[in-house]
Amino acid sequence: MSETLERLEAVIASRRGADPGSSYVASLFAKGRPKIARKFGEEAVETIVAALAEDGPALTGEAADVLFHLMVLLADAGVPLSDVLAELDRREGVSGIIEKAGRTT
Amino acid sequence: MSETLERLEAVIASRRGADPGSSYVASLFAKGRPKIARKFGEEAVETIVAALAEDGPALTGEAADVLFHLMVLLADAGVPLSDVLAELDRREGVSGIIEKAGRTT
Amino acid sequence: MSETLERLEAVIASRRGADPGSSYVASLFAKGRPKIARKFGEEAVETIVAALAEDGPALTGEAADVLFHLMVLLADAGVPLSDVLAELDRREGVSGIIEKAGRTT
Amino acid sequence: MSETLERLEAVIASRRGADPGSSYVASLFAKGRPKIARKFGEEAVETIVAALAEDGPALTGEAADVLFHLMVLLADAGVPLSDVLAELDRREGVSGIIEKAGRTT
Repeated sequence: MSETLERLEAVIASRRGADPGSSYVASLFAKGRPKIARKFGEEAVETIVAALAEDGPALTGEAADVLFHLMVLLADAGVPLSDVLAELDRREGVSGIIEKAGRTT
Repeated sequence: MSETLERLEAVIASRRGADPGSSYVASLFAKGRPKIARKFGEEAVETIVAALAEDGPALTGEAADVLFHLMVLLADAGVPLSDVLAELDRREGVSGIIEKAGRTT
Repeated sequence: MSETLERLEAVIASRRGADPGSSYVASLFAKGRPKIARKFGEEAVETIVAALAEDGPALTGEAADVLFHLMVLLADAGVPLSDVLAELDRREGVSGIIEKAGRTT
Repeated sequence: MSETLERLEAVIASRRGADPGSSYVASLFAKGRPKIARKFGEEAVETIVAALAEDGPALTGEAADVLFHLMVLLADAGVPLSDVLAELDRREGVSGIIEKAGRTT
């Protein structure tokens, strides 16, 4: 399960040069960064609405849409997923120290 | 690297009952779903702005913020990360078939 | 020109009970608050993207979409436009005093 | 009441060259389009959250924030409010015809 995002990143990269008529990912790249950002934003809005409507199955689907379009946006901007995960790891280390310190005071 | 989100999910769950005064995650849970959704949405907006401003380092940080707050939102709604990744895997299987079919026609 | 929003508010109210099959406004009301909020959010995202892409004509159209769907959202929630404009007037009065004070120091 | 947005547009224009230290509007212009777009987006998210939380007073305030930051975004991009209102008027004329036609069939 934990390799899903890494595999998705590889699939997105492999479709970059595909025919936009037969690949959704290729069609997103062909439309350009503004359109990719727009799709990501729309899925984020739908995620918020599903979360506030307490609709678990819808939230699952919308969160998947957010992750998918975030991955395409990162790929279009040349940012590897590993950079984003490293940033999360780094913060977790930092915040772990802060939260620990906070708990002992 | 690939275990980052799983570890983050466990950390978020472990802080659920912590003191909101010493844990950012606990303070988010204490404020409730609308505030968590709002933070997630704000980070999504900042991700879009960083992506369109062609600011790679900012995009890396904002994407990490989106993932972090999406994980808190899912936790608050009781949706496990594994459900979202399974949905991505399922779609990848389906779209792989579709894109393959598209390429052969 | 300045009566546009007031007229729009009256038109939106008048279509509330119309046939969703023949009126876009009626179809939005029929779908409910989450769908209206989602449409508003999507138009806000498109406005951001158009503004950052320096596309003036697109920004004009997207800003009109934002205003339109914000008016439908307010109507669905029972908030009159006049309340929102009164809030803007109130702030303007307050901020005018603050900014004046700021300038004289 | 109906002149609120026109007055706001004039105030925003008049503060364009003011000291960013003493004027919020001037500070927004000084930060640039991406920051203005980001503030607008954050207010749009807060509007969605207030609308779905059925919090009328919060929705009134957030809608005022959306209008205010939309006006600053339009000013920064050189799009006059009258263009946006004219677009709304134009659509209203068009949709009025469409909805009328729809009702008679």
